[in-house]
Amino acid sequence: MEEGTERRALTPAEILALREIVGAAHVLVLPDDLEPYAHDWTEDFIHVPAAAVRPRSTAEVSRVLALCNERAIPVTPQGGRTGLSGGALALHGGVALSLDRMDTILEIDRANLVVIVEAGVITQRVHEAVEEQGLSYPPDPASRGSCTIGGNVAENAGGPHAAKYGVTGKWVLGLEAVLADGSVLVTGGKTRKDVAGFDLTALLVGSEGTLAVVTKAWLRLMHRPTCWATLIAPFGTLEQAARCVVALHDAGLVPAACEIVDRPAAEVSSRRKGESLPFPEAEARLLIEFDGAADAEVEREATLAGEIALECGALDVVLATDEAKRRRLWEIRRGIGEAVRELGPSAELDLGVPRTALVSLVESVRRISAEAGLAAVSFGHASDGNLHVHLYRDVRGGSAREIADIAREGHTAPGAAHDEADAVRFGAATRAIYAAAAALGGTVTGEHGVGITSREHLSLCRSRAYIDALRAIKRALDPLGILNPGKLIPSPPG
Amino acid sequence: MEEGTERRALTPAEILALREIVGAAHVLVLPDDLEPYAHDWTEDFIHVPAAAVRPRSTAEVSRVLALCNERAIPVTPQGGRTGLSGGALALHGGVALSLDRMDTILEIDRANLVVIVEAGVITQRVHEAVEEQGLSYPPDPASRGSCTIGGNVAENAGGPHAAKYGVTGKWVLGLEAVLADGSVLVTGGKTRKDVAGFDLTALLVGSEGTLAVVTKAWLRLMHRPTCWATLIAPFGTLEQAARCVVALHDAGLVPAACEIVDRPAAEVSSRRKGESLPFPEAEARLLIEFDGAADAEVEREATLAGEIALECGALDVVLATDEAKRRRLWEIRRGIGEAVRELGPSAELDLGVPRTALVSLVESVRRISAEAGLAAVSFGHASDGNLHVHLYRDVRGGSAREIADIAREGHTAPGAAHDEADAVRFGAATRAIYAAAAALGGTVTGEHGVGITSREHLSLCRSRAYIDALRAIKRALDPLGILNPGKLIPSPPG
Repeated sequence: MEEGTERRALTPAEILALREIVGAAHVLVLPDDLEPYAHDWTEDFIHVPAAAVRPRSTAEVSRVLALCNERAIPVTPQGGRTGLSGGALALHGGVALSLDRMDTILEIDRANLVVIVEAGVITQRVHEAVEEQGLSYPPDPASRGSCTIGGNVAENAGGPHAAKYGVTGKWVLGLEAVLADGSVLVTGGKTRKDVAGFDLTALLVGSEGTLAVVTKAWLRLMHRPTCWATLIAPFGTLEQAARCVVALHDAGLVPAACEIVDRPAAEVSSRRKGESLPFPEAEARLLIEFDGAADAEVEREATLAGEIALECGALDVVLATDEAKRRRLWEIRRGIGEAVRELGPSAELDLGVPRTALVSLVESVRRISAEAGLAAVSFGHASDGNLHVHLYRDVRGGSAREIADIAREGHTAPGAAHDEADAVRFGAATRAIYAAAAALGGTVTGEHGVGITSREHLSLCRSRAYIDALRAIKRALDPLGILNPGKLIPSPPG
Repeated sequence: MEEGTERRALTPAEILALREIVGAAHVLVLPDDLEPYAHDWTEDFIHVPAAAVRPRSTAEVSRVLALCNERAIPVTPQGGRTGLSGGALALHGGVALSLDRMDTILEIDRANLVVIVEAGVITQRVHEAVEEQGLSYPPDPASRGSCTIGGNVAENAGGPHAAKYGVTGKWVLGLEAVLADGSVLVTGGKTRKDVAGFDLTALLVGSEGTLAVVTKAWLRLMHRPTCWATLIAPFGTLEQAARCVVALHDAGLVPAACEIVDRPAAEVSSRRKGESLPFPEAEARLLIEFDGAADAEVEREATLAGEIALECGALDVVLATDEAKRRRLWEIRRGIGEAVRELGPSAELDLGVPRTALVSLVESVRRISAEAGLAAVSFGHASDGNLHVHLYRDVRGGSAREIADIAREGHTAPGAAHDEADAVRFGAATRAIYAAAAALGGTVTGEHGVGITSREHLSLCRSRAYIDALRAIKRALDPLGILNPGKLIPSPPG
């Protein structure tokens, strides 16, 4: 049996013991009840856990883990199950440990600019709660309406505004987390500068639930910017758009966000929203945003950015002058992920390269997908060099363009790997594209996490010594390997 | 024999083997040659290594470590030896591994805003090299003219401008490091977003040379701010100054730096520079700086900050209107550390608390030092809640004020712990002050590192589970414990 497919069932005694800890109502075992806990947003993967367990407190999480550790029961922590690398899938059965009932915003400390939340709080609730007080928690993954802070921490989630403000990890001051043996760890708190010991906060951020279950987070806040300017610039080619991104930074500008969207991506999303797309011939668009505390400064930056975009060949520069228009632009951008998923199964790649390598990466994606007879849809966080690519079966042998035609005509499933030959084709193209990113000094995951989708590609961008170190640390903190088995760390060679 | 005092000598064969790796000229064993490698800037500690070894390449570091690992020779990595927690002291003898010959700035990649440096490069050289190109590497520890990037990474060094820009770790994109067994690890590179595996970059940052020897770093850069405004505000009491810091942030201001200096600290430093001190009656001063890309915006911030300071009871607000005056203000601030050290031996504490707890911390420092019959000098990075406290024997039973009088009269050694009773007094006061910081939700080291000075205080702010996790990770990556033994991790109980 392939590693990762061996499924641990639970004995009646184990289920009883779990019920004693969290209450009978919060241990789900019936197939219908388990359905939501069997998938996340990663392609079309389904892995049904033996039980979904929903603790209400850190003490309950601790007791569940101590029990599972004693009985060698795999535990897959789950937040909003919106991940795109399969991190929340219970590959090995056992317990899906959902933090959804631990959803209290415990404190907003305005004077220290810190919010303390339980892990199961939906990210957008944090945004709304702090914005009411004129504050901001900047990390804004596309799934913010459904994802949780615990999941964001586990995956070190990014988002468009990471361009200026950095990813989730930059905003985590401390974590409460439960180790595999049930012991509870607090790694920091409201103190901004703290070098007392290895940075376990940073080690747990992005560890994808393989080292500990995060139960609480101290998040840094800032005052909310009061001024925004949002620009859209369509370009004749993706290359022009990518070059513009470099030029913007060369001029000393730091956009709050700087998104790149190729034609098929813009088309499927705008169509889904029922919006017409200006400059339909544009092969790429940049969505550039500036923010700050002073109108004059934000205007200066936006004006300069517009001039640079035109110098780089933009067909036009449109400034969103009001909040409604700004929101609409963002809705189209944020809707891309969902829109392309509705086109049917695909291979979804999360690539990261140095900013200047974006042009080369785009060229590689086109060449490799064309050679494989696949269509590619690309969009992402350009100033971070973070590109999301969806590969589709190009049913008519045409260009990436066809994806949009398919969508327009109501073919909701152009189809990805439906047979073995297809699977090989998708696998080979995926691997080749990740290899191209790695060869450009890049990574096999910029923000989605390794999970299961990038696990066997990790060695493209990480050395043997690095992967050995991951294994050693994993063994040190979770000797029995109960926490999220089958994720992040590649299967041993041989 | 107390742990930490057992000194490993080297056999002639071992010295020969080391010479074969790095060249005979770069293995120092004579007492005179070893003197510089026997101390850092931490109080008056002296620990002479058996040999100082100065490799020129990562390959040489790798071979040295493989040899030392095989022969169980302790290895203490050394950068500029400017640390304040004893991290570079060869407590156990063996090899002091100095990275000083690995001092090449390898590349400044302007388009990607990345500089690649060898670990032994002096921090100020990086500043100067990137500033020539209009760029900035913000971390600026007080010792920047002597400390190295490798040391900054090992200690996760801070500095005044961490207030706005964060500590060293926020600027490290990737590291090359050699593990205890000699294997070479690369943890990142020019790619800004990268979640491929646990964040080993962040784990190594601040690990104080106990997990690996950092040999190379990829550091993030930004465009250099073009406008500055620097204010000095004297206050009648330290409490007023600390309250002003909170008020500044409450108004949404983000100072580039926000330093607090008490009267004795200001007096010793200005006297040493031969400067007269305006408002000699002020018990505290704030040095507040704003920077940015637009004069108008920086002026707006500085003006608002000045108004807030006056509302908080500032005796005056002085704006440094030109670069020469700004530089002089900073020289006085930066000179404090050295000036107080010249007063003679003292206990040096590096405290961190939530910003709003600074007032309570200052009160605790005063109460505890007074009860112990000690004088205290305090200064630090106020907006980060990071306070440095030097405790002195108060030779006349007077107030903290006396320190300045002593300095004026040329007593260069007012004396710290010269006998056992003194040692007990200093130890008890130090412990009580760290406990007070921890009780405020703070830390026993904000930016100097745990090293030897905070090692036995770590349990005040970190739980048993946390310290156990440190031990497990240390064992995982350095099973024989050759890397910087006796540092960071508290000695086992019992």
